[in-house]
Amino acid sequence: MKNSILHFSSVYLAQTASLVGKKESEGPLASYFDAIEEDPYFGTDTFEKAESEMARRTLNILLGKSGKRPEDIDLLMGGDLLNQCIATSFAVTKTHIPFLGLYGACSTIIEGSIVASAFINGGLVKNAAVMASSHFCSAERQYRFPLEYGSQRTPTAQHTVTGCGAYLFQNEPTPFRVKEAVIGKIVDNGVKDANNMGAAMATAAVDTILRYFNESSLKPQDFDLIATGDLGKEGHEISIELLKRCGYTLGDIYVDCGMLIYDIEKQDMHAGASGCACMATVFGGHIFKRMQNNELKRVLLIATGALLNKKSALQNESIPSIAHLIHICKE
Amino acid sequence: MKNSILHFSSVYLAQTASLVGKKESEGPLASYFDAIEEDPYFGTDTFEKAESEMARRTLNILLGKSGKRPEDIDLLMGGDLLNQCIATSFAVTKTHIPFLGLYGACSTIIEGSIVASAFINGGLVKNAAVMASSHFCSAERQYRFPLEYGSQRTPTAQHTVTGCGAYLFQNEPTPFRVKEAVIGKIVDNGVKDANNMGAAMATAAVDTILRYFNESSLKPQDFDLIATGDLGKEGHEISIELLKRCGYTLGDIYVDCGMLIYDIEKQDMHAGASGCACMATVFGGHIFKRMQNNELKRVLLIATGALLNKKSALQNESIPSIAHLIHICKE
Repeated sequence: MKNSILHFSSVYLAQTASLVGKKESEGPLASYFDAIEEDPYFGTDTFEKAESEMARRTLNILLGKSGKRPEDIDLLMGGDLLNQCIATSFAVTKTHIPFLGLYGACSTIIEGSIVASAFINGGLVKNAAVMASSHFCSAERQYRFPLEYGSQRTPTAQHTVTGCGAYLFQNEPTPFRVKEAVIGKIVDNGVKDANNMGAAMATAAVDTILRYFNESSLKPQDFDLIATGDLGKEGHEISIELLKRCGYTLGDIYVDCGMLIYDIEKQDMHAGASGCACMATVFGGHIFKRMQNNELKRVLLIATGALLNKKSALQNESIPSIAHLIHICKE
Repeated sequence: MKNSILHFSSVYLAQTASLVGKKESEGPLASYFDAIEEDPYFGTDTFEKAESEMARRTLNILLGKSGKRPEDIDLLMGGDLLNQCIATSFAVTKTHIPFLGLYGACSTIIEGSIVASAFINGGLVKNAAVMASSHFCSAERQYRFPLEYGSQRTPTAQHTVTGCGAYLFQNEPTPFRVKEAVIGKIVDNGVKDANNMGAAMATAAVDTILRYFNESSLKPQDFDLIATGDLGKEGHEISIELLKRCGYTLGDIYVDCGMLIYDIEKQDMHAGASGCACMATVFGGHIFKRMQNNELKRVLLIATGALLNKKSALQNESIPSIAHLIHICKE
């Protein structure tokens, strides 16, 4: 049988940073994030520059919390949802850190964590930082309509998280070890509704989770938390049903970051949250802090990405999706 | 001193594939490419689907030339210039190969070659395929204007290559060893003219080349060929001048793939070629075959990427650029 699981022997998570916007600061995880910015422009004059400024600040928070200068970082990688990933490129230009641009849609933060782990585990670099951002306002006008239109959203629509998460990995031991990873395969189940990305991505999440458990000696019950990235309510339900049919009942330990960051009912968030920043900030801000507090020890993260663009949706193409997995544990 | 050079001990280039369009089939390298398609739609009904079809066919050519089935490939990665890299995502969906999406603009093929080498060198996978595509028609209407407008081009403008290149790397020895790499840093020299990307990218190319030679025991004269990706005439001249000021006169061995693929004068190509496919097809189709024919042994490739998007150009932002380097030699 083909081996899907990559095993790392010497990769550790050193630090995380998270910065979010106003809506996220009104949700149940508000107290966990490192910083909040209520101005959607982040002091700039366009939403695109705002996203870059947000990403720049988040990287600075990561460096500050880690006690590192840019020149101490061997490798930086990341991406975002803007065309050609400009939020990230513009954010990191002045750091002069060797940079790899990634595009995995909302799976980018875990895609980056896997690539960073590969470089560190192989001894090519001592450390690597990973970042991913999204911004509700820049995403809306790029993927859907300008905010000024006041478009109505469907019940299955998800709200793009305004935020950025950044993580630092290294070869020097910390209590938080990156043990394993599964690189996602692109899955296309024929869903064409760009307002129901949860349904498109659920199959990809399930594919990756099954590949992991079918090959691992661990069972779902061995984990304290199994978190998908941004399936939302709709996608989460679908994934539970699909996993059940394949013999896996994950129960309460199985959560979706897209259902955690907002109070979906009170904040009227339809199916929940999405965006590169969804898992990036929920793990970086919330889950990792729960690990630091010994509330969680063994965590499986499955970040999901919908690989469409505006034109492919208009051309009536279905939505190819992907999900990357890492297993982090406190030792 | 900080070490910029990554050293690989067990990474080999096994095979390459290249597919190009009509204009490229009329240029001086025509006979080197594996396949040519004269129909810009590649049998589909949109330029975006055409680019995907082109990428899909190229991957198939790579598999065919390598004697591999999709399930023999441990890891696939790549990207393109379309928003959210849809050409690549749609092209590879049906392969079911674990996939990493990259965005490095026109540097993507070498960015991917470095990431593939990291996974192989560290023993995480046995082999990995890398691909990058671009299409003149999809790029024009996305970045500039629909072709129907018949827009005039400036003298410094470059023509996006219609083509796709795909490479297979592995841990099993072949005569073609990937010895070293330098991951680029983003450089922004203030150039804002999206019709002069060569000038924007030249500084990034020079930064990477200098980082390599300042730390390497090798001199430019030790190489049979030093090729940049797609600086074009303008950027090539600028890079020669900048390198000279820093004490490096590279002479005739220093070429730019953007000046090789077309007969710039006869085909009226202004400053030459650009696009992800430029270096991807010129190395994959032309340079690699010259290595196979023993015409070249030691080659340095520096792929350049301009990390702008249409909106950043309209918002009057400058063009951050990057250049990734690999050293391949025949042993």
